[in-house]
Amino acid sequence: MKGLIYLDNSATTKPCNEAAEAALDAIKNNYGNPSSLYEFGMLAEDIVTSARGEIAKKLLCREDEIFFTSCGSESNSTAIFGAVKLGRRNGKHIVTTAIEHPSVLEPIKQLEKDGYEVTYLKPDENGNISVEELSSAVRPDTVLVSMMYVNNEVGSILPVEKIKTALNQKSSKALIHIDCVQAFGKININVSTLGADLLSISAHKIHGIKGAGALYVKKGINLPPFLLGGGQEKGLRSGTEAVPAIAAFGAAVKALPNTAYAFKKVAEINDYCRNGLQQFDNVIINSPKNATPYILNLSFLGYRSETLLHFLERSLICVSSGSACSKGKGSYVLREMGLKNDRVDSALRLSFSANTTTDEIDAFLTALKGATSLVRNKNR
Amino acid sequence: MKGLIYLDNSATTKPCNEAAEAALDAIKNNYGNPSSLYEFGMLAEDIVTSARGEIAKKLLCREDEIFFTSCGSESNSTAIFGAVKLGRRNGKHIVTTAIEHPSVLEPIKQLEKDGYEVTYLKPDENGNISVEELSSAVRPDTVLVSMMYVNNEVGSILPVEKIKTALNQKSSKALIHIDCVQAFGKININVSTLGADLLSISAHKIHGIKGAGALYVKKGINLPPFLLGGGQEKGLRSGTEAVPAIAAFGAAVKALPNTAYAFKKVAEINDYCRNGLQQFDNVIINSPKNATPYILNLSFLGYRSETLLHFLERSLICVSSGSACSKGKGSYVLREMGLKNDRVDSALRLSFSANTTTDEIDAFLTALKGATSLVRNKNR
Repeated sequence: MKGLIYLDNSATTKPCNEAAEAALDAIKNNYGNPSSLYEFGMLAEDIVTSARGEIAKKLLCREDEIFFTSCGSESNSTAIFGAVKLGRRNGKHIVTTAIEHPSVLEPIKQLEKDGYEVTYLKPDENGNISVEELSSAVRPDTVLVSMMYVNNEVGSILPVEKIKTALNQKSSKALIHIDCVQAFGKININVSTLGADLLSISAHKIHGIKGAGALYVKKGINLPPFLLGGGQEKGLRSGTEAVPAIAAFGAAVKALPNTAYAFKKVAEINDYCRNGLQQFDNVIINSPKNATPYILNLSFLGYRSETLLHFLERSLICVSSGSACSKGKGSYVLREMGLKNDRVDSALRLSFSANTTTDEIDAFLTALKGATSLVRNKNR
Repeated sequence: MKGLIYLDNSATTKPCNEAAEAALDAIKNNYGNPSSLYEFGMLAEDIVTSARGEIAKKLLCREDEIFFTSCGSESNSTAIFGAVKLGRRNGKHIVTTAIEHPSVLEPIKQLEKDGYEVTYLKPDENGNISVEELSSAVRPDTVLVSMMYVNNEVGSILPVEKIKTALNQKSSKALIHIDCVQAFGKININVSTLGADLLSISAHKIHGIKGAGALYVKKGINLPPFLLGGGQEKGLRSGTEAVPAIAAFGAAVKALPNTAYAFKKVAEINDYCRNGLQQFDNVIINSPKNATPYILNLSFLGYRSETLLHFLERSLICVSSGSACSKGKGSYVLREMGLKNDRVDSALRLSFSANTTTDEIDAFLTALKGATSLVRNKNR
């Protein structure tokens, strides 16, 4: 769409040229089945292997610790259901947070119905999760701690690197699952210093294409499969590999800019936007100060999120009200932070990429100014 | 790969131009998240909706009865695990066949471990499943009958349209799941005359791209989800939709040639190949006479499948030994048919498409003749 100002990069991203070309090559030229024994099949397998290598390099892990799935949600289900099966002799207690993505919360709610006890850590009013509460929540019978690295709605950074110590203090053998869908490619991730046993990522959030996710599984953990069948991905994930999306995933990872460089660039964009927002006396920033710069959640008091969103799109500006998955329902993340209705109902999430420009932020600010005059009376 | 003679169309197929273009358009132009509320997201949603419509038209069902998944294997797991959950108050008995795809057999073996009783219908020496045995297998406490329409290794056509009557005779409320991965696009499928409650299909077997499958769920059946999360696909299948692969799926279905026309064309190719094979005194055809013409399984007695396969690929001819998923292990399908080692170990599966030519068959026959002189002594 020409002239599109896409400020919704936490929902999905524009595939980079490298990803598009890799996908197209897999579609047009390397359409063999990676399980086929002849060379034409092996060429497709090579694409998968090479993408696996790119991801392993980025996560500083072994190639055989990376397993492809169809999306971040499937990675999360594979991790969560697999971990509790593995730990079934150690206990039935799970620790997570109240602000996880639905693809973590829903599987855990399912387990709660099946008899698991779950501790949901609550965020403070800034969306931060306390290390102390984490430490007191874990128990010897905890079998899984599942926590996102970066919250997808407000951008708060969760204390994932403290989980290991908390578990050690309680002599718990719980597995650590970190949902890195919003962190991967934006924050340097080192699986060993994080202490992660399982770690989820998704291609389309980092300029790959939709249809591929991956799960890091620490060497030695014999995770049971979520999807059964022909035994692809060393038996962890059956089903013919989505070679085009996997090819694009590898290409997108390879094309990622230097993390620190991109972070600095996006931090400048974020600052620029925050400064510009100071002209509005009815704007409250919901993202904490120490949030990732990639996400900026704000409330435009007196105006409903959806009204604003549709007004902004007249100027071809894409932002979201909460996450893409919540489809317009009031954000449970903001509610868990204890925000009142006026802030929840008027929330907008901007999410940036390394390609976002100050011109785009200016266009957003101008449009927002226009919104004030146009919709104030109708929607107050 | 230039000059490739691809006779392994049951493993995967070459994406048609329409599919490649649809995927590329989704990647380059319509990269929005279908769950986003603004128009750019809705354009992506429109692609998904339109693909759903194409599939519904082909299966003669309602659009809201089609749910996208990541692959045929996921469709099968969704159907099987969902069906037994729905039927848990009616019993714990499942009927299937011994020659299903691993993505059906493995979930059912899992259920067997969890306490379900399973009747595996055995094929005769031609790979056919008897209606009488089906009828006597179903019981009032049967909750699921899962049967493939077309066997992926020998091409036998299973009596799926007889399941409904068999169930009615025993007053069983079992759900009927038909794995149509090898049938869709090749045999006319009418979900109502089949009596299907659940029906699995896959994009990459019909010249779509890898990374999309679909499940038909009969209106009124409230199937529980397999993949939990953001609630996409009306809650049945969470996870951001793989828009490029879904777009290609719709385009591939739309581009399918008339079923009867293609069937006749492929039947001629199959006949041509069978005739040509008569020159070899050591060839036995393993596919039954009434098999789908799309699959021709044969044994080239005295030569190991893998040796032949690798010899044929020197002439750029791709065939498989058993299915792509079995990765060179002796075929359990042929064993279940009661074939002896000499036939199992020398089996080749040819699988055709509407684009297969007699020239390609000639090339295969010539290469096979060459194989005789080259590998006979080494591999006898």
